Amino acid sequence: MEKVLAINSGSSSFKYKLFSLPDEKVIAKGMADRVGLDYASFEIKLADGTKHVEKTEIPDQEAAVSLLLKFLKQFNVVEDLNEIVGVGHRVVNGGEFFKDSTIITKENLHEIYELEDYAPLHNPAEGRGIEAFMNVLPNVPQVAVFDTTYHRALDPVHYLYSLPYEYYEKYGVRKYGAHGTSVRYVAPRAADMMGKDLKDLKLIVCHLGSGASITAVKDAKSYDTSMGFSPLAGITMATRSGDIDPSLIQHLMHVEHKSMDEMIYMLNHKSGLLGLSGISPDMRDVRESDSDRAKLARNIFINRIVRYVGSYIAEMGGVDGIIFTAGIGEHDMGVREAVMDAFKYMGVDPDYEANNKISEGFITKPDSKVKVMVIPTNEELMIERDVVRLTHIN
Amino acid sequence: MEKVLAINSGSSSFKYKLFSLPDEKVIAKGMADRVGLDYASFEIKLADGTKHVEKTEIPDQEAAVSLLLKFLKQFNVVEDLNEIVGVGHRVVNGGEFFKDSTIITKENLHEIYELEDYAPLHNPAEGRGIEAFMNVLPNVPQVAVFDTTYHRALDPVHYLYSLPYEYYEKYGVRKYGAHGTSVRYVAPRAADMMGKDLKDLKLIVCHLGSGASITAVKDAKSYDTSMGFSPLAGITMATRSGDIDPSLIQHLMHVEHKSMDEMIYMLNHKSGLLGLSGISPDMRDVRESDSDRAKLARNIFINRIVRYVGSYIAEMGGVDGIIFTAGIGEHDMGVREAVMDAFKYMGVDPDYEANNKISEGFITKPDSKVKVMVIPTNEELMIERDVVRLTHIN
Repeated sequence: MEKVLAINSGSSSFKYKLFSLPDEKVIAKGMADRVGLDYASFEIKLADGTKHVEKTEIPDQEAAVSLLLKFLKQFNVVEDLNEIVGVGHRVVNGGEFFKDSTIITKENLHEIYELEDYAPLHNPAEGRGIEAFMNVLPNVPQVAVFDTTYHRALDPVHYLYSLPYEYYEKYGVRKYGAHGTSVRYVAPRAADMMGKDLKDLKLIVCHLGSGASITAVKDAKSYDTSMGFSPLAGITMATRSGDIDPSLIQHLMHVEHKSMDEMIYMLNHKSGLLGLSGISPDMRDVRESDSDRAKLARNIFINRIVRYVGSYIAEMGGVDGIIFTAGIGEHDMGVREAVMDAFKYMGVDPDYEANNKISEGFITKPDSKVKVMVIPTNEELMIERDVVRLTHIN
Repeated sequence: MEKVLAINSGSSSFKYKLFSLPDEKVIAKGMADRVGLDYASFEIKLADGTKHVEKTEIPDQEAAVSLLLKFLKQFNVVEDLNEIVGVGHRVVNGGEFFKDSTIITKENLHEIYELEDYAPLHNPAEGRGIEAFMNVLPNVPQVAVFDTTYHRALDPVHYLYSLPYEYYEKYGVRKYGAHGTSVRYVAPRAADMMGKDLKDLKLIVCHLGSGASITAVKDAKSYDTSMGFSPLAGITMATRSGDIDPSLIQHLMHVEHKSMDEMIYMLNHKSGLLGLSGISPDMRDVRESDSDRAKLARNIFINRIVRYVGSYIAEMGGVDGIIFTAGIGEHDMGVREAVMDAFKYMGVDPDYEANNKISEGFITKPDSKVKVMVIPTNEELMIERDVVRLTHIN
């Protein structure tokens, strides 16, 4: 039976899911963690619910990939490695170059690295992850699935910055957004739940993970999104600042005698919930803390969601459904409740009981004018489907 | 009869209005233009409607102030210069240091210059303007009226950026906003027109000049505002970019080999309507052009207003009135119409006929759930009142 791997690589880790075809069942998943560091580990969860963790030295991503293949055979997930007919990789930024998911070659792999400025936390790590799979599985097609391609539907009014126009023409300086693969899964799922055609709906997807973004969906397409040229912009995130006034960077460079690159590092790694709370980038820690700064961080996180949802309601001239997804969106009822309460003026009628227990479904009352839903995202499924589509497996 | 001057200084110009007391009538107004440059001129308009322009050499701001005093005597606006009992100056940024309008001393004048990073287009020029008046009229109290103090009512959730908290504590990195003096005039005026107590209203003021901002007013106070640490942030302006993703600055620095200071200059002087249209920073020129880029610039300008108004409606949980003021707000019916149309979903019922002819008043129908108004701003009147309040003239 043919199988497809979906991979999400970080700088010293990757997460994987193995799908069987054509039933799209996840038959193994897990992660390689702390690759190239001390205390590395490899984890596999099987379809029967069992989980195996090996703490071992993993010198590089190639070793991690070999470990994955070893485990897949060892636990009889695959009989022969030839069953793996394609590997799909999440890549955050595809810039202007990549207009769709694509089969990776040595040439376009170079382009993924070239887009480093657009997604410094992601693209280089994802490029190295792809390379490792190319080296270990040289005969298996590798497919890049970009977070940005879904947002190529944006109108120039929404994707252009108010800069000298030549910067767009010469360097592709525009809004690219991210989390498109997540929204591409969640939006049709919401339409199904609402029993409506996606084309007839105005939806707003709150993808709230350690990276977080808000996307407006209209006419079954991305209409606007809060991340920008890079995933730094938009709402407050775990360690990323979201929107700021660029003048304050100049001021901090003057008073702290720092470079722009140091500033961008600070904005990506030291800001957001971590910078405000001083405690943790993890919303679970922030929520459980009694400190004033932790409360402030949480309230600012909620406020930025409300700002963006409000602006997208205005851009679309109304809203039919609001969806919460990803780590915080799927599990933090307090954030969801605060956002729902903010939109009572639009006809949101929260079902607090449902909100406190549901893992997928409506969290507004049946007659609520605007529906609010929790939908666990499934980017890996969309990656698997793009691998199938592009490699013509079926 | 006592008189008060209200001054708005630019880098090579100042505008003035002379008020008589206690009736607050404007008895002369005009400007000194191209000070220190070729083709300098000085203009005075009198209460009877006559206007006099002198094209003459004006080597520096002191010379311009002397020219103003000469004209005031020459046209019998004042009999004796001692009638001028105070001069009020608009200053854009008062930082954390200035919590209210204040009488200027040598010491605090220094602070105004120190805030240059916070308002590079404004504070240095305004400081030099104040100094010129101090030199020519050493015995007359000079009062600084800050655009920022009105926004000191903001909650930390709205004024803090999602940065390491120490940057706020150590360097006062926060949102300061601007145009507070304009909103301070316009918001109570709107409440009067609506026949309501300002305390009971949720208002949104669109101050649309070459600098432009959106301010939410709730509980008779500033609730949120679109300009940020500096007047660079927020909506698209004549030459300023408004909000951008800081990562794109880093990218442009890499590919254009430019410094951060050059980038901030570009964002302040070459962006906005000018950068997008490639034609002009002036909305009148942009509106009259048939070029695609001019149309795009205009649509982006409108979109950014809609985004902010939408987000402030969400933050306040509704809106009772939207006010247009300043150059574009008072005169560009097309912009007003587009923004009104965007908020039909909130119950805005536009009166297009009124919108096309009114200079002050309602531009929605009498039964419109949300009222929209045009109100010419009058920052100089607020400056005059602060001079009177702080110098205890009456």
